[in-house]
Amino acid sequence: MFENAELGRTIPKKEYDRTLPKLRARMVQAEFALKAVRVPVIVIISGVDGAGKGDVVHRLNEWFDPRGLDTHAFWHETEEERSHPFYWHFWQALPARGRIGLLLGSWYTQPVIQRVHGNIKNDALDAAMLRISFFEEMLVDDGAVIVKLWFHLSAKMLARRLKNLDNDPRTHWRVLPVDWAHQKLYKKFVDVSERALRQTDTEHAPWHLVEATDSRYRDLTAARIILEAMEKRLARADRNKPTRPRSTPKSGFPYVKQATILDQVDLSQSLSCKSYEKKLSKYQARLNALVWAAYQKRMANVIVFEGWDAAGKGSAIRRVTAAMDPRLFRVVPIAAPTDEEHAHHYLWRFWRHLPANGLVTIFDRSWYGRVLVERVEGFAHPEEWSRAYRELNMFEEHLSEHGTVLTKFWIHISKEEQLRRFRERESVAFKQYKITAEDWRNRENWETHMMAVHDMVAHTSTEYAPWTLVAGNDKKFARIQILKTLCRQLERAL
Amino acid sequence: MFENAELGRTIPKKEYDRTLPKLRARMVQAEFALKAVRVPVIVIISGVDGAGKGDVVHRLNEWFDPRGLDTHAFWHETEEERSHPFYWHFWQALPARGRIGLLLGSWYTQPVIQRVHGNIKNDALDAAMLRISFFEEMLVDDGAVIVKLWFHLSAKMLARRLKNLDNDPRTHWRVLPVDWAHQKLYKKFVDVSERALRQTDTEHAPWHLVEATDSRYRDLTAARIILEAMEKRLARADRNKPTRPRSTPKSGFPYVKQATILDQVDLSQSLSCKSYEKKLSKYQARLNALVWAAYQKRMANVIVFEGWDAAGKGSAIRRVTAAMDPRLFRVVPIAAPTDEEHAHHYLWRFWRHLPANGLVTIFDRSWYGRVLVERVEGFAHPEEWSRAYRELNMFEEHLSEHGTVLTKFWIHISKEEQLRRFRERESVAFKQYKITAEDWRNRENWETHMMAVHDMVAHTSTEYAPWTLVAGNDKKFARIQILKTLCRQLERAL
Repeated sequence: MFENAELGRTIPKKEYDRTLPKLRARMVQAEFALKAVRVPVIVIISGVDGAGKGDVVHRLNEWFDPRGLDTHAFWHETEEERSHPFYWHFWQALPARGRIGLLLGSWYTQPVIQRVHGNIKNDALDAAMLRISFFEEMLVDDGAVIVKLWFHLSAKMLARRLKNLDNDPRTHWRVLPVDWAHQKLYKKFVDVSERALRQTDTEHAPWHLVEATDSRYRDLTAARIILEAMEKRLARADRNKPTRPRSTPKSGFPYVKQATILDQVDLSQSLSCKSYEKKLSKYQARLNALVWAAYQKRMANVIVFEGWDAAGKGSAIRRVTAAMDPRLFRVVPIAAPTDEEHAHHYLWRFWRHLPANGLVTIFDRSWYGRVLVERVEGFAHPEEWSRAYRELNMFEEHLSEHGTVLTKFWIHISKEEQLRRFRERESVAFKQYKITAEDWRNRENWETHMMAVHDMVAHTSTEYAPWTLVAGNDKKFARIQILKTLCRQLERAL
Repeated sequence: MFENAELGRTIPKKEYDRTLPKLRARMVQAEFALKAVRVPVIVIISGVDGAGKGDVVHRLNEWFDPRGLDTHAFWHETEEERSHPFYWHFWQALPARGRIGLLLGSWYTQPVIQRVHGNIKNDALDAAMLRISFFEEMLVDDGAVIVKLWFHLSAKMLARRLKNLDNDPRTHWRVLPVDWAHQKLYKKFVDVSERALRQTDTEHAPWHLVEATDSRYRDLTAARIILEAMEKRLARADRNKPTRPRSTPKSGFPYVKQATILDQVDLSQSLSCKSYEKKLSKYQARLNALVWAAYQKRMANVIVFEGWDAAGKGSAIRRVTAAMDPRLFRVVPIAAPTDEEHAHHYLWRFWRHLPANGLVTIFDRSWYGRVLVERVEGFAHPEEWSRAYRELNMFEEHLSEHGTVLTKFWIHISKEEQLRRFRERESVAFKQYKITAEDWRNRENWETHMMAVHDMVAHTSTEYAPWTLVAGNDKKFARIQILKTLCRQLERAL
């Protein structure tokens, strides 16, 4: 595969000087045009050490308007990164819509390096590559352009270049001891990389090999490849639509009245005050101990609350948090995104709030908004929300593989009970803020919402992140069910 | 001081039940009203351990609409926090405009605890308190409400409460070993706290003592104090203006033509191409080694670039970054704030981008926008930009005390040279994007800008963060001057 990048291609200085000004003008134009249509560009800079990846980054910073460019180098992991799921720091580094992100090192680096050093086997490498393919597909689906560059240098050329740099006193400082060490691993590194590249050379995010022998050829070629990808993206007529046309959106489960998953919830279940008080103390004490135990074991916890308006999410959350030390948990209410959040993939803002190891994050509404309110209200296209099930499952799989415990509650109430609660809210002064015209409007769409909930539970109740349907007509019963479930989940995980 | 909070105040259940609904209604009302006028509320929850601070937090989360509330507990420091200046994590936790932030633990915690354990002396404690006063004043000046609550319990009551909790099997889990340990330090802790409180009981952010013997009294009183502060803030007629009326804004230095600091810059200085090339290699190599050395020593570097339009900031930055490993630096271009940034104090977004220990952040324009463009264009009120000098000095002092090396460049060019460059930009295709109508408009205000620059340099060139005025008419000379200055600064610091 890499032989194609060992042909000794060069560009003479004259041609370079002649070509560059026009190329730069087009690069800046494309940058501004993509900024206007809010398309993010992700450029992955990878390849063998010594091929001059750093120089390419410097060059691109010179040729583009650097104000629209973010460079991120993934280097040694910080404690903060280690205590979050693997993709966490990549999500932080993804460019906002309309910006270009240069990634020096990327999601490829760690799996490849681990394979080179023999810490993982081929099947683990392959699994990581499969996951990467899906991750990249998701970003492209969301409108991003991904340009993946691999800078190649033959073993012979690499040795010669390192020697030259090292011998010249002006450039001696550019050679690090680690460069010489890596050179010995060259063969192994190239083999593993080839395997990785082959598996991730997809239609939505293809690899580009760039021969790095001649720096003029290298830099111009890299710039041209990026420019071409940007111009291709610009040429697409309908710029704000999802990128790749889907054949047909996956249709929701056929909806038959009286046959949704929610109908199985026995809403008549209730608890007496006395029994409630007793159980509340019991489970809160148990939960408290379990949360401390999870803290000791550095196990992260994510708890998701979804449910009908007035289902009692807020008061249930308070019974849960009352059992936890305020230093250990955070409640994140999910409302309309801020403009910074809006400028990223819809999952970005949830990655932002993930708990570090040992801590708990409670989401009051969550990423499931994508397949609930966004679906029902038409904020998301059918192809967007229908592919979201897979995206959400993958997201939760990332967390789960990191060791995060996930618990998801849908609090169910009957339509009649909701009406009763709406009326009560209107009559109590300090509850009035909880009821708005929107709540009444949502109520009118009860059946459509029901269908969305049904589809959601059907598609996203996984082994590693099952849904718990809570019988919410009796608030006391619901709270105990929730506390009990949390205790059981934690006991199982610990 | 604390005797006043040992009077055994209680509220009977009946009175509590009667008062609460009305109080809650007013709390929610005030919360929504302050949200509408975008006023942030900072509530500091402090006091002796065992007074039930956590319970108060739970209660406030219940009584306010929790969606408008963020709770932050400052607990053990993460590596990420240790590698940033002390105030860094507090800035991350400050509530956005229109939100309420409950801080469990705060900027008071560490100095007080350190004094209790004898790690610092009284003068260091006093210095920390002085800094806190200024920090809080700055937030209040920016429109925030700060409510500082101290929950007090006498030594006798504390012992009794811990014993009760510990003996009851339902609450035994609430008592941590550390609570018993702290109890022994009680006397010392209360003494140090009293000293700290006395010094920070300011007009703009007074302390409130709350007796914590009776939990009903404690919770109601805390809620009332917060509510009162919020309602007082609401009552102020002119809600969007800076909070405290300043007597008269500090006037800028008297401006006399031909007598600004900038006139001292000898713009005729230049370098030949040959000499430039030689020096460039030399200083880039030296800078590279120095940046690596700073990395080894975990010393953070902040470099600020300011200057006239077309002064050559961008190209100078590229000569600086060319000498650095891309893993070590980040360039942060400062443009208009995002809405998330806009919802915070103007310094918030710079705190966000500060480098961790060992790394370099280069700001292409900076916090000095406050006293430059915002002053000239009238985006900041005179009282805002005139108090900013002190705020900026304090900000840089925070960095400097942490060990961060600060270097600030103003690149100066003559008005004629600017005109020449503007024309050149218009004629070169890949440079056209750099010139806009705004640049021409700014040029018309040259003299007003000049005065702002003069004042800025005069007020903010400090021992720990001096300004370097760069002679920019000859780009080669300017670049070498910048590289040389950076090397010298680093050599001195290392």
